[in-house]
Amino acid sequence: MAQGRRRAMPSREQLRIWRDYIETTELLRTRLEGRLQSESSLSSADYRVLLALSEADRTTLRSSALAERVGWQRSRLSHHLARMEKRDLIRRTPCLDDVHGVDVHLTDLGAESFRRGSVPHLRSVHELFVDALTPEQLAGLDAAVTALREHLDPEDTGLSRRRDTGRNS
Amino acid sequence: MAQGRRRAMPSREQLRIWRDYIETTELLRTRLEGRLQSESSLSSADYRVLLALSEADRTTLRSSALAERVGWQRSRLSHHLARMEKRDLIRRTPCLDDVHGVDVHLTDLGAESFRRGSVPHLRSVHELFVDALTPEQLAGLDAAVTALREHLDPEDTGLSRRRDTGRNS
Repeated sequence: MAQGRRRAMPSREQLRIWRDYIETTELLRTRLEGRLQSESSLSSADYRVLLALSEADRTTLRSSALAERVGWQRSRLSHHLARMEKRDLIRRTPCLDDVHGVDVHLTDLGAESFRRGSVPHLRSVHELFVDALTPEQLAGLDAAVTALREHLDPEDTGLSRRRDTGRNS
Repeated sequence: MAQGRRRAMPSREQLRIWRDYIETTELLRTRLEGRLQSESSLSSADYRVLLALSEADRTTLRSSALAERVGWQRSRLSHHLARMEKRDLIRRTPCLDDVHGVDVHLTDLGAESFRRGSVPHLRSVHELFVDALTPEQLAGLDAAVTALREHLDPEDTGLSRRRDTGRNS
Protein backbone atom coordinates (compact mmCIF):
# COMPACT_ATOMS: atom_id res chain seq x y z
CA MET A 1 0.00 0.00 0.00
CA ALA A 2 1.47 3.36 -1.04
CA GLN A 3 2.81 5.54 1.78
CA GLY A 4 0.78 8.65 2.36
CA ARG A 5 -2.22 7.43 0.40
CA ARG A 6 -3.86 6.01 3.52
CA ARG A 7 -6.17 3.91 1.40
CA ALA A 8 -9.21 2.53 3.11
CA MET A 9 -8.98 5.03 5.95
CA PRO A 10 -11.91 7.42 6.54
CA SER A 11 -11.35 11.11 5.89
CA ARG A 12 -11.68 13.55 8.76
CA GLU A 13 -15.16 14.52 7.58
CA GLN A 14 -16.26 10.89 7.20
CA LEU A 15 -15.03 10.21 10.73
CA ARG A 16 -16.86 13.25 12.05
CA ILE A 17 -20.09 11.92 10.53
CA TRP A 18 -19.37 8.42 11.88
CA ARG A 19 -18.86 9.67 15.43
CA ASP A 20 -21.89 11.94 15.36
CA TYR A 21 -23.95 9.00 14.11
CA ILE A 22 -22.80 6.55 16.78
CA GLU A 23 -22.88 9.02 19.67
CA THR A 24 -26.25 10.48 18.73
CA THR A 25 -27.78 7.02 18.38
CA GLU A 26 -26.45 6.10 21.80
CA LEU A 27 -27.81 9.29 23.33
CA LEU A 28 -31.21 8.59 21.77
CA ARG A 29 -31.28 5.03 23.10
CA THR A 30 -30.28 6.16 26.57
CA ARG A 31 -33.06 8.74 26.64
CA LEU A 32 -35.64 6.22 25.44
CA GLU A 33 -34.54 3.58 27.94
CA GLY A 34 -34.79 6.06 30.79
CA ARG A 35 -38.33 6.94 29.77
CA LEU A 36 -39.41 3.33 29.31
CA GLN A 37 -38.22 2.47 32.78
CA SER A 38 -39.89 5.48 34.39
CA GLU A 39 -43.18 5.06 32.52
CA SER A 40 -43.70 1.30 32.79
CA SER A 41 -42.53 -1.58 34.92
CA LEU A 42 -40.40 -2.80 31.99
CA SER A 43 -36.68 -2.51 31.46
CA SER A 44 -35.51 -2.18 27.88
CA ALA A 45 -34.32 -5.81 28.11
CA ASP A 46 -37.84 -6.92 29.11
CA TYR A 47 -39.26 -4.88 26.28
CA ARG A 48 -37.06 -6.50 23.67
CA VAL A 49 -38.02 -9.99 24.77
CA LEU A 50 -41.73 -9.15 24.89
CA LEU A 51 -41.53 -7.47 21.48
CA ALA A 52 -39.87 -10.50 19.88
CA LEU A 53 -42.41 -12.91 21.41
CA SER A 54 -45.38 -10.72 20.55
CA GLU A 55 -44.36 -10.85 16.88
CA ALA A 56 -43.69 -14.59 16.79
CA ASP A 57 -46.08 -17.25 15.50
CA ARG A 58 -48.36 -18.22 18.38
CA THR A 59 -46.30 -15.75 20.50
CA THR A 60 -43.76 -18.52 21.10
CA LEU A 61 -40.08 -18.79 20.16
CA ARG A 62 -37.42 -21.44 20.65
CA SER A 63 -34.92 -19.93 23.11
CA SER A 64 -32.13 -20.17 20.51
CA ALA A 65 -34.21 -18.17 18.03
CA LEU A 66 -35.07 -15.64 20.73
CA ALA A 67 -31.37 -15.23 21.63
CA GLU A 68 -30.61 -14.48 18.00
CA ARG A 69 -33.56 -12.12 17.70
CA VAL A 70 -32.53 -9.97 20.67
CA GLY A 71 -28.80 -10.30 19.98
CA TRP A 72 -27.73 -11.75 23.34
CA GLN A 73 -25.58 -14.66 24.42
CA ARG A 74 -27.74 -17.58 25.50
CA SER A 75 -26.49 -17.44 29.10
CA ARG A 76 -27.53 -13.80 29.43
CA LEU A 77 -30.90 -14.60 27.90
CA SER A 78 -31.41 -17.56 30.21
CA HIS A 79 -30.78 -15.45 33.33
CA HIS A 80 -33.05 -12.74 32.10
CA LEU A 81 -35.84 -15.18 31.20
CA ALA A 82 -35.69 -16.71 34.69
CA ARG A 83 -36.41 -13.28 36.18
CA MET A 84 -39.21 -12.61 33.68
CA GLU A 85 -40.76 -16.00 34.40
CA LYS A 86 -40.91 -15.19 38.13
CA ARG A 87 -42.86 -12.05 37.24
CA ASP A 88 -45.19 -14.19 35.08
CA LEU A 89 -44.33 -12.24 31.90
CA ILE A 90 -43.18 -15.36 30.02
CA ARG A 91 -43.36 -19.13 30.49
CA ARG A 92 -40.80 -21.75 29.48
CA THR A 93 -41.60 -25.31 28.44
CA PRO A 94 -39.40 -28.12 27.09
CA CYS A 95 -39.50 -28.46 23.30
CA LEU A 96 -41.49 -31.47 22.20
CA ASP A 97 -39.10 -32.22 19.33
CA ASP A 98 -35.74 -31.40 20.95
CA VAL A 99 -34.74 -32.71 24.38
CA HIS A 100 -32.22 -29.86 24.80
CA GLY A 101 -34.51 -27.11 23.60
CA VAL A 102 -36.78 -24.72 25.45
CA ASP A 103 -39.83 -22.93 24.07
CA VAL A 104 -40.50 -19.45 25.43
CA HIS A 105 -44.13 -18.34 25.50
CA LEU A 106 -45.66 -14.93 26.06
CA THR A 107 -48.13 -15.08 28.97
CA ASP A 108 -51.36 -13.08 29.07
CA LEU A 109 -49.78 -10.80 31.66
CA GLY A 110 -46.69 -10.42 29.45
CA ALA A 111 -48.83 -9.50 26.45
CA GLU A 112 -50.77 -6.99 28.54
CA SER A 113 -47.60 -5.48 30.04
CA PHE A 114 -46.09 -5.15 26.58
CA ARG A 115 -49.23 -3.54 25.20
CA ARG A 116 -49.34 -1.04 28.04
CA GLY A 117 -45.61 -0.31 27.98
CA SER A 118 -45.58 0.12 24.24
CA VAL A 119 -47.96 3.09 24.20
CA PRO A 120 -45.73 5.53 26.11
CA HIS A 121 -42.67 4.01 24.45
CA LEU A 122 -44.03 4.63 20.96
CA ARG A 123 -45.03 8.15 21.95
CA SER A 124 -41.43 8.67 23.04
CA VAL A 125 -40.17 7.30 19.73
CA HIS A 126 -42.40 9.80 18.00
CA GLU A 127 -41.33 12.69 20.18
CA LEU A 128 -37.58 12.01 20.24
CA PHE A 129 -37.10 10.52 16.76
CA VAL A 130 -39.93 11.22 14.31
CA ASP A 131 -40.52 14.79 15.49
CA ALA A 132 -36.83 15.60 15.06
CA LEU A 133 -36.81 14.86 11.34
CA THR A 134 -38.36 16.39 8.25
CA PRO A 135 -39.84 13.85 5.80
CA GLU A 136 -36.75 14.38 3.63
CA GLN A 137 -34.41 13.72 6.55
CA LEU A 138 -36.36 10.60 7.49
CA ALA A 139 -36.15 9.36 3.89
CA GLY A 140 -32.42 10.17 3.80
CA LEU A 141 -31.85 8.21 7.00
CA ASP A 142 -33.86 5.30 5.63
CA ALA A 143 -31.81 5.21 2.42
CA ALA A 144 -28.53 5.25 4.35
CA VAL A 145 -29.65 2.60 6.85
CA THR A 146 -30.92 0.33 4.07
CA ALA A 147 -27.57 0.63 2.26
CA LEU A 148 -25.67 -0.09 5.50
CA ARG A 149 -27.79 -3.13 6.26
CA GLU A 150 -27.39 -4.53 2.77
CA HIS A 151 -23.64 -4.03 3.03
CA LEU A 152 -23.44 -5.78 6.41
CA ASP A 153 -25.93 -8.51 5.70
CA PRO A 154 -26.40 -9.01 1.97
CA GLU A 155 -29.13 -11.60 2.44
CA ASP A 156 -31.04 -8.92 4.24
CA THR A 157 -33.60 -11.25 5.73
CA GLY A 158 -34.37 -9.08 8.75
CA LEU A 159 -35.14 -5.99 6.76
CA SER A 160 -37.28 -7.60 4.12
CA ARG A 161 -39.25 -9.58 6.67
CA ARG A 162 -40.04 -6.46 8.61
CA ARG A 163 -41.01 -4.50 5.55
CA ASP A 164 -43.92 -6.93 5.26
CA THR A 165 -44.89 -7.23 8.90
CA GLY A 166 -43.52 -4.09 10.62
CA ARG A 167 -45.18 -3.60 14.00
CA ASN A 168 -44.27 -2.01 17.29
CA SER A 169 -40.69 -1.23 18.14
CA MET B 1 -56.77 13.65 23.43
CA ALA B 2 -59.38 12.49 20.90
CA GLN B 3 -60.09 8.75 20.85
CA GLY B 4 -58.90 7.01 17.72
CA ARG B 5 -56.65 9.83 16.59
CA ARG B 6 -53.60 8.28 18.25
CA ARG B 7 -51.79 11.58 18.08
CA ALA B 8 -48.05 11.52 18.56
CA MET B 9 -47.77 7.85 17.64
CA PRO B 10 -45.43 6.85 14.79
CA SER B 11 -46.97 5.49 11.60
CA ARG B 12 -46.17 1.94 10.54
CA GLU B 13 -43.64 3.23 8.01
CA GLN B 14 -41.98 5.53 10.54
CA LEU B 15 -41.68 2.60 12.94
CA ARG B 16 -40.23 0.42 10.23
CA ILE B 17 -37.52 3.05 9.61
CA TRP B 18 -36.93 3.43 13.36
CA ARG B 19 -36.42 -0.28 13.88
CA ASP B 20 -34.19 -0.67 10.84
CA TYR B 21 -32.13 2.26 12.10
CA ILE B 22 -31.68 0.94 15.64
CA GLU B 23 -31.10 -2.69 14.66
CA THR B 24 -28.69 -1.87 11.84
CA THR B 25 -26.67 0.44 14.08
CA GLU B 26 -26.46 -2.32 16.69
CA LEU B 27 -25.37 -4.84 14.09
CA LEU B 28 -22.69 -2.45 12.85
CA ARG B 29 -21.37 -1.83 16.37
CA THR B 30 -21.29 -5.54 17.14
CA ARG B 31 -19.29 -6.23 13.98
CA LEU B 32 -16.84 -3.43 14.72
CA GLU B 33 -16.37 -4.52 18.34
CA GLY B 34 -15.66 -8.07 17.26
CA ARG B 35 -13.00 -6.86 14.85
CA LEU B 36 -11.40 -4.49 17.35
CA GLN B 37 -11.05 -7.29 19.87
CA SER B 38 -9.60 -9.72 17.34
CA GLU B 39 -7.20 -7.20 15.80
CA SER B 40 -5.83 -5.52 18.92
CA SER B 41 -5.50 -6.19 22.62
CA LEU B 42 -8.22 -3.60 23.26
CA SER B 43 -11.85 -4.08 24.13
CA SER B 44 -14.27 -1.47 22.86
CA ALA B 45 -14.48 -0.18 26.45
CA ASP B 46 -10.67 0.28 26.53
CA TYR B 47 -10.84 2.01 23.18
CA ARG B 48 -13.44 4.52 24.33
CA VAL B 49 -11.41 5.48 27.38
CA LEU B 50 -8.18 5.80 25.39
CA LEU B 51 -9.93 7.83 22.69
CA ALA B 52 -11.36 10.27 25.24
CA LEU B 53 -8.00 10.71 26.98
CA SER B 54 -6.07 11.03 23.73
CA GLU B 55 -8.29 13.96 22.76
CA ALA B 56 -8.11 15.71 26.14
CA ASP B 57 -5.83 18.60 27.03
CA ARG B 58 -2.50 17.14 28.18
CA THR B 59 -4.17 13.70 27.65
CA THR B 60 -5.67 13.97 31.14
CA LEU B 61 -9.29 14.10 32.32
CA ARG B 62 -10.96 14.39 35.70
CA SER B 63 -12.67 11.02 36.29
CA SER B 64 -16.09 12.72 36.46
CA ALA B 65 -15.52 14.31 33.04
CA LEU B 66 -14.32 10.98 31.64
CA ALA B 67 -17.44 9.22 32.97
CA GLU B 68 -19.60 11.76 31.19
CA ARG B 69 -17.54 11.53 28.02
CA VAL B 70 -17.87 7.73 27.73
CA GLY B 71 -21.43 7.68 29.08
CA TRP B 72 -20.90 5.27 31.99
CA GLN B 73 -21.83 5.31 35.64
CA ARG B 74 -18.85 6.27 37.78
CA SER B 75 -18.71 2.88 39.51
CA ARG B 76 -18.44 1.08 36.18
CA LEU B 77 -15.75 3.49 35.05
CA SER B 78 -13.83 3.07 38.29
CA HIS B 79 -13.73 -0.74 37.95
CA HIS B 80 -12.70 -0.50 34.34
CA LEU B 81 -9.96 2.06 35.08
CA ALA B 82 -8.52 -0.20 37.79
CA ARG B 83 -8.07 -2.95 35.21
CA MET B 84 -6.57 -0.55 32.66
CA GLU B 85 -4.18 0.82 35.28
CA LYS B 86 -2.88 -2.69 35.99
CA ARG B 87 -2.10 -3.02 32.30
CA ASP B 88 -0.29 0.35 32.43
CA LEU B 89 -2.64 1.91 29.85
CA ILE B 90 -3.69 4.75 32.17
CA ARG B 91 -2.55 6.21 35.48
CA ARG B 92 -4.68 7.77 38.22
CA THR B 93 -3.55 10.56 40.56
CA PRO B 94 -5.41 12.60 43.18
CA CYS B 95 -6.58 16.00 41.92
CA LEU B 96 -4.53 18.82 43.34
CA ASP B 97 -7.57 21.09 43.72
CA ASP B 98 -10.21 18.58 44.85
CA VAL B 99 -9.61 16.10 47.66
CA HIS B 100 -12.37 13.82 46.31
CA GLY B 101 -11.32 13.99 42.69
CA VAL B 102 -9.10 11.76 40.59
CA ASP B 103 -7.21 12.72 37.44
CA VAL B 104 -6.87 10.03 34.78
CA HIS B 105 -3.78 10.24 32.58
CA LEU B 106 -2.94 8.46 29.36
CA THR B 107 0.39 6.61 29.74
CA ASP B 108 2.94 6.27 26.94
CA LEU B 109 1.93 2.62 26.57
CA GLY B 110 -1.75 3.63 26.50
CA ALA B 111 -1.07 6.19 23.78
CA GLU B 112 0.89 3.64 21.75
CA SER B 113 -1.79 0.94 22.20
CA PHE B 114 -4.46 3.39 21.11
CA ARG B 115 -2.45 4.47 18.08
CA ARG B 116 -1.88 0.88 17.01
CA GLY B 117 -5.44 -0.24 17.70
CA SER B 118 -6.92 2.71 15.89
CA VAL B 119 -5.40 1.85 12.50
CA PRO B 120 -7.27 -1.45 11.99
CA HIS B 121 -10.32 0.00 13.71
CA LEU B 122 -10.48 2.97 11.34
CA ARG B 123 -9.97 0.65 8.37
CA SER B 124 -12.96 -1.33 9.63
CA VAL B 125 -15.00 1.86 9.96
CA HIS B 126 -14.15 2.61 6.36
CA GLU B 127 -14.95 -0.88 5.14
CA LEU B 128 -18.19 -1.41 7.08
CA PHE B 129 -19.55 2.14 7.15
CA VAL B 130 -18.01 4.51 4.59
CA ASP B 131 -17.83 1.91 1.81
CA ALA B 132 -21.51 1.08 2.28
CA LEU B 133 -22.69 4.57 1.45
CA THR B 134 -22.73 6.79 -1.61
CA PRO B 135 -21.71 10.41 -0.94
CA GLU B 136 -25.40 11.33 -1.15
CA GLN B 137 -26.33 8.67 1.40
CA LEU B 138 -23.57 9.81 3.73
CA ALA B 139 -24.77 13.41 3.43
CA GLY B 140 -28.37 12.28 4.03
CA LEU B 141 -27.32 10.39 7.15
CA ASP B 142 -25.34 13.40 8.37
CA ALA B 143 -28.32 15.73 7.92
CA ALA B 144 -30.62 13.35 9.82
CA VAL B 145 -28.15 12.77 12.64
CA THR B 146 -27.49 16.48 13.01
CA ALA B 147 -31.23 17.15 13.26
CA LEU B 148 -31.64 14.34 15.80
CA ARG B 149 -28.80 15.63 17.94
CA GLU B 150 -30.09 19.17 17.91
CA HIS B 151 -33.52 17.89 18.91
CA LEU B 152 -32.10 15.83 21.80
CA ASP B 153 -29.48 18.29 22.94
CA PRO B 154 -30.30 21.79 21.73
CA GLU B 155 -27.09 23.24 23.15
CA ASP B 156 -25.28 20.84 20.91
CA THR B 157 -21.92 21.25 22.59
CA GLY B 158 -20.59 17.82 21.64
CA LEU B 159 -21.26 18.17 17.94
CA SER B 160 -19.92 21.66 17.53
CA ARG B 161 -16.79 20.92 19.51
CA ARG B 162 -16.03 17.92 17.34
CA ARG B 163 -16.65 19.79 14.13
CA ASP B 164 -13.59 21.81 15.04
CA THR B 165 -11.34 19.11 16.38
CA GLY B 166 -12.65 15.82 14.87
CA ARG B 167 -10.09 13.06 15.26
CA ASN B 168 -10.10 9.29 15.50
CA SER B 169 -13.20 7.40 16.43
